[in-house]
Amino acid sequence: MDTLFSGITVITMEENGQGAQEGQGFAKQGAVLRHGYVGVKGKKIVYVGDKPPAEKAARVIDGSRRLLMPGLVNSHSHLPMTLLRGYADDYNLQEWLFNHIFPAESKLDARCIAAGIRLGLAECIRFGVVSCTDMYFHLPQIALAVLETGVKANITNAVLCLDMDKFDFEKDRGVMEVKELLAEGAGAGSRRGDGRLIIDTGIHAEYTSAPAVWEKSAAFAAENNLRLHLHLSETEREHKACIERYGKTPTEVLSENGVFASKTTAAHCCWLTEGDMDILAAAGATAAHCPVSNLKLASGVAPVAKMQERGMNVALGTDGACSNNNLDMFEEIKAAALLQKYKTGNPSVMPAYEAVKMATVNGAAGQGRAGECGRVAPGYDADIIMLNFDSPHLFPLSDPFAAVAYAAKGSDVCLTMVQGRILYENGEYKTVDIEKIRHEVENYVLPRIAR
Amino acid sequence: MDTLFSGITVITMEENGQGAQEGQGFAKQGAVLRHGYVGVKGKKIVYVGDKPPAEKAARVIDGSRRLLMPGLVNSHSHLPMTLLRGYADDYNLQEWLFNHIFPAESKLDARCIAAGIRLGLAECIRFGVVSCTDMYFHLPQIALAVLETGVKANITNAVLCLDMDKFDFEKDRGVMEVKELLAEGAGAGSRRGDGRLIIDTGIHAEYTSAPAVWEKSAAFAAENNLRLHLHLSETEREHKACIERYGKTPTEVLSENGVFASKTTAAHCCWLTEGDMDILAAAGATAAHCPVSNLKLASGVAPVAKMQERGMNVALGTDGACSNNNLDMFEEIKAAALLQKYKTGNPSVMPAYEAVKMATVNGAAGQGRAGECGRVAPGYDADIIMLNFDSPHLFPLSDPFAAVAYAAKGSDVCLTMVQGRILYENGEYKTVDIEKIRHEVENYVLPRIAR
Repeated sequence: MDTLFSGITVITMEENGQGAQEGQGFAKQGAVLRHGYVGVKGKKIVYVGDKPPAEKAARVIDGSRRLLMPGLVNSHSHLPMTLLRGYADDYNLQEWLFNHIFPAESKLDARCIAAGIRLGLAECIRFGVVSCTDMYFHLPQIALAVLETGVKANITNAVLCLDMDKFDFEKDRGVMEVKELLAEGAGAGSRRGDGRLIIDTGIHAEYTSAPAVWEKSAAFAAENNLRLHLHLSETEREHKACIERYGKTPTEVLSENGVFASKTTAAHCCWLTEGDMDILAAAGATAAHCPVSNLKLASGVAPVAKMQERGMNVALGTDGACSNNNLDMFEEIKAAALLQKYKTGNPSVMPAYEAVKMATVNGAAGQGRAGECGRVAPGYDADIIMLNFDSPHLFPLSDPFAAVAYAAKGSDVCLTMVQGRILYENGEYKTVDIEKIRHEVENYVLPRIAR
Repeated sequence: MDTLFSGITVITMEENGQGAQEGQGFAKQGAVLRHGYVGVKGKKIVYVGDKPPAEKAARVIDGSRRLLMPGLVNSHSHLPMTLLRGYADDYNLQEWLFNHIFPAESKLDARCIAAGIRLGLAECIRFGVVSCTDMYFHLPQIALAVLETGVKANITNAVLCLDMDKFDFEKDRGVMEVKELLAEGAGAGSRRGDGRLIIDTGIHAEYTSAPAVWEKSAAFAAENNLRLHLHLSETEREHKACIERYGKTPTEVLSENGVFASKTTAAHCCWLTEGDMDILAAAGATAAHCPVSNLKLASGVAPVAKMQERGMNVALGTDGACSNNNLDMFEEIKAAALLQKYKTGNPSVMPAYEAVKMATVNGAAGQGRAGECGRVAPGYDADIIMLNFDSPHLFPLSDPFAAVAYAAKGSDVCLTMVQGRILYENGEYKTVDIEKIRHEVENYVLPRIAR
């Protein structure tokens, strides 16, 4: 085999895997190997066990004071928005969006996006994210960066139309970009780069479009066998305005227009009704819960525990860096667990294991990558991260799930591997030229958006 | 001078200092030097400016891609509880406290505390905390570790008595420990080690004691000119039980028994009434807001914006590692800002600058260290930290306050200095032997508390 992680604490996320009883408290639901061995060959995990494998490895990585776990899945991001990190904070939503973010975004050309997506991907890799579901413009630039950088991503356009008289689905910029990418594949479907890149399609949101958009988008997704991505019931205001407009919730009207017939990731979902949850659960949709962004913009706390009770798959996302302001999924894991305890008034709700599962297993499922990503198990892609636990804040290590969910941070990641390829290790980026990106942002991007 | 930080972004926290207009948005309220110079001589900051000082420095630290700011103040901690990190998570409060935490704590002897306080202080130093207000047992051990480690701390006992028939204030263990420490000073008052160590006194909480305790503690504090520290209205249950018991809120009954006559830091304050806030504001008390712990134990979100409106000083704390599970004050800054936006439904409430101020200026004031700690200004102690901004998640640097409050983490701290002495720099601890502590915890502490 190529790489052997040796004598390492492993969170496998296998529900009945080896070591399933070793965790404490609620953590026992997920498997932990206290002194495990994980072997990688080519793109795959080929060995997981509590004894060394028979086969020799080209490289052995010492796992003492280290923890191995599935790489994280960021289920809702706008990576190029890292360019606008700290550009406008602490404003109310309308002022923020219309006076600051939209005007700045309108100045971002393809060259800006090429830098922005690489900056965002560098942060992902550094903080242990192996796969993103990203929604933005300039998809060809984004696809190129994903393929080049070695990560996994589901990338998606976002149809947005505020004047339906002028709406032409065929000429929508994002739709054209998706078609361009599909055409490049010469009938290969929506996957590229050994399946790392998946082309999805999307609708920005109910409140920024109309039934004609939803019908066309749903048909387009179905015809091309694409997954869908959208923002759903993020704020109370938009949720209530939809009910006033159509007499129905956003989930109901979108559902009636066929949107959820394709597998959908719905970001935010702060204001879903129980009826909405049932519709989405029945459709096999995934909610991308973005707790940090939802607090920062004062949108609310999504009813995650309730969504899960009603059978929905719930994953986690950072949203864009403008409303966060980083892309550290460990912060989302902690915030998600803590906020459900607060919201339900019950500290045993959303235990550490469940929160970690949202950022791994559930995220992978939402991207159509179940069985491929999100677990450390033979046959899965080697999409794994190693954390350096040789730090005061991660000692003593009583419960690995509690350590990951409540004490660890993205900066504890010391190795990120996707399909067996190391993308980041101990401060070194293997596929991203950070200095080149910094230079481009400082000299090309920032002057364009200077106020 | 001894040390010069050269060409560095500086957050001074001076309200009308140099560069006060350079920040963006709300951040303009606090001073930022974009390319500044900060000089340290002995224990003091002697120079802050936008041009190099005339005097040469023995060591010049290059500030490119670095940020200098006041060290953080953790206004409510139980540092030795780091020993129990991850020991019991996701339980309801009663089960957590009575079946897990209290039984484990009862097994911690002075030798355990000596290791635990050093582990906790190591994490503080690594994450940029220069001063703590800590409440725990075995105060002589704790005092020793504070003096040895070089940090600042206000340390306090916590009178706790569940059976008042057996209560004897003079024989209370914590009270005796405080007296022992005061006696050692031979009339020098409550300060030791160049003022780094301050001896406070404390009451655990209203619900774990009674009027006789409060009276005696208040008198003891007044006689010895000590500050007070206590837990106040942390949970709705305790707040309401007090009203049932006495017909008054915890703040009201404690006030009537003279508690707030001494300068007090009240931890949590989740359920204060407006009347309580007025009492505390008039008394010059400080609330130590612990947002992460309050979420994790489902206690609530303290009405910080309201407390500030009514004139209270609000600082931030991590609480113990058992209910957090780390001691990273950057997480508290972010959580505090985000939760107030959520609670008030207004994203412009608690802007980045205000959140940073709670963890610096307000914390220092709460400890009786105003004018000494919490700002980067000539005449202040050199209690400062440097952050490494050469990371994707801190680029671009549009607004230093937003970067610190929303994007940075404790692990970005690359240098921690207290009274001019470097305690941590680039992975190296100058006053703590981490390997020795690990060995002691693994071989002495953990076997004692093993279940």
